[in-house]
Amino acid sequence: MIDLEEIRIVLVAPSHPGNIGAAARAMKTMGLSRLYLVSPESYPHAEATARASGADDVLARALVCQDLDEALRGVTLVLGTSARARSLEWPTIPPRQAAERINAESGGEAAIVFGRERSGLTNSELERCHYRVHIPANPEYSSLNLAAAVQLLCYELALAAEAGPVDDPTPAISEEDPREAYAEQIEVERFYVHLEAALAEIEFLDRENPRQLMRRLKRLFNRTRLLRTEVNLLRGILTAAQRQAKLARGG
Amino acid sequence: MIDLEEIRIVLVAPSHPGNIGAAARAMKTMGLSRLYLVSPESYPHAEATARASGADDVLARALVCQDLDEALRGVTLVLGTSARARSLEWPTIPPRQAAERINAESGGEAAIVFGRERSGLTNSELERCHYRVHIPANPEYSSLNLAAAVQLLCYELALAAEAGPVDDPTPAISEEDPREAYAEQIEVERFYVHLEAALAEIEFLDRENPRQLMRRLKRLFNRTRLLRTEVNLLRGILTAAQRQAKLARGG
Repeated sequence: MIDLEEIRIVLVAPSHPGNIGAAARAMKTMGLSRLYLVSPESYPHAEATARASGADDVLARALVCQDLDEALRGVTLVLGTSARARSLEWPTIPPRQAAERINAESGGEAAIVFGRERSGLTNSELERCHYRVHIPANPEYSSLNLAAAVQLLCYELALAAEAGPVDDPTPAISEEDPREAYAEQIEVERFYVHLEAALAEIEFLDRENPRQLMRRLKRLFNRTRLLRTEVNLLRGILTAAQRQAKLARGG
Repeated sequence: MIDLEEIRIVLVAPSHPGNIGAAARAMKTMGLSRLYLVSPESYPHAEATARASGADDVLARALVCQDLDEALRGVTLVLGTSARARSLEWPTIPPRQAAERINAESGGEAAIVFGRERSGLTNSELERCHYRVHIPANPEYSSLNLAAAVQLLCYELALAAEAGPVDDPTPAISEEDPREAYAEQIEVERFYVHLEAALAEIEFLDRENPRQLMRRLKRLFNRTRLLRTEVNLLRGILTAAQRQAKLARGG
């Protein structure tokens, strides 16, 4: 079970400073406080402070990051909210189940990522997420305000925390043995970079049209939630394959 | 089960027009559309339209009312949101249970009433409600934005509607027999006026300090949810008692 205080709310490139303030307020009403802002268009801003309305301590502690990876440093469970349908569907859960999933987390840190007001998350950003969170909404008008979406997720998190810990649906992992910990998101991201390079080198991946392949692989690995030991093992395999490719090219 | 389209969202004296627009948007994302505005400070207003952001059809259909009774005309189930603790506690349920309660409603119309941004609902307004809805929140900062509260309630209503009808916890009432219908709120309100007058006439009620007594009685009757036939019966009793009091005074 994760302390509400430890859950990160990550806003990717919010364009309206008022939404940042309203999101801070929504978080605080539900007991959350760790706000991460990835490349906000206008921040700090008087409108953000005005709309925070008493939650200015959350704003004051907010961290501004250059990119999503920076905001996810140290995080082991990433959930991304998204209203858009995708060509390749990501494992998708509703807010209640997302909160239960975070509540079941036995260690590490969790983040919920919210996309841009107009365009949401890019595919590349969504690929950093273990789950896509979809808020059920009116099919003819599903455009929730950013802060309203933050409010709903934080509300479900607070209810789940109140209900207490539930069984972790993923295999039990010893908290005592650091080698058995989930990999941090940045480690998985480095693995993906390594994987893509290796696949190109062994001429399995066509760099001209690489995307769908990597997305399918990321979806697979994200669903399993890799342990740190597993990431190291997989990267060892990649290095071995790269060595063979280099030898094959006469390197 | 009540159609989402039939559930009224009633905002009592909202002071910020932006909140009205944001509430309309929150409603529409969850499939609700019937907005009632009781004495809004500034409406219509450009800020309301701007924040509605595509939900302007909900705004266009919104009804502006002089007082809460007007907004509740025809309603048989009233729920009032309130963060404030009261000297006399009202039956209080969380949003999820409120949505289930409305979902279990077999006929008639339902309204969820939201109070002023700063001061909420008055005691007199809360006394028109069968239940008080309390959103569980951070005890140190429970100040949800008005539109955020509307979003949470509409979200729970949409989930409950999606889950389908549940058993009505109140006694079954024949929908065919109009005499067995729940009383409308305005009929109950007239009964309360009658009750208070009668209690004063029979010298049970001290007009100098009447409030706690009437509130206790209203709490009792609201909890039972009166049928129309029962209201008529009770008023008949009151009239009989008043006649006795008048005779006693030598009338």
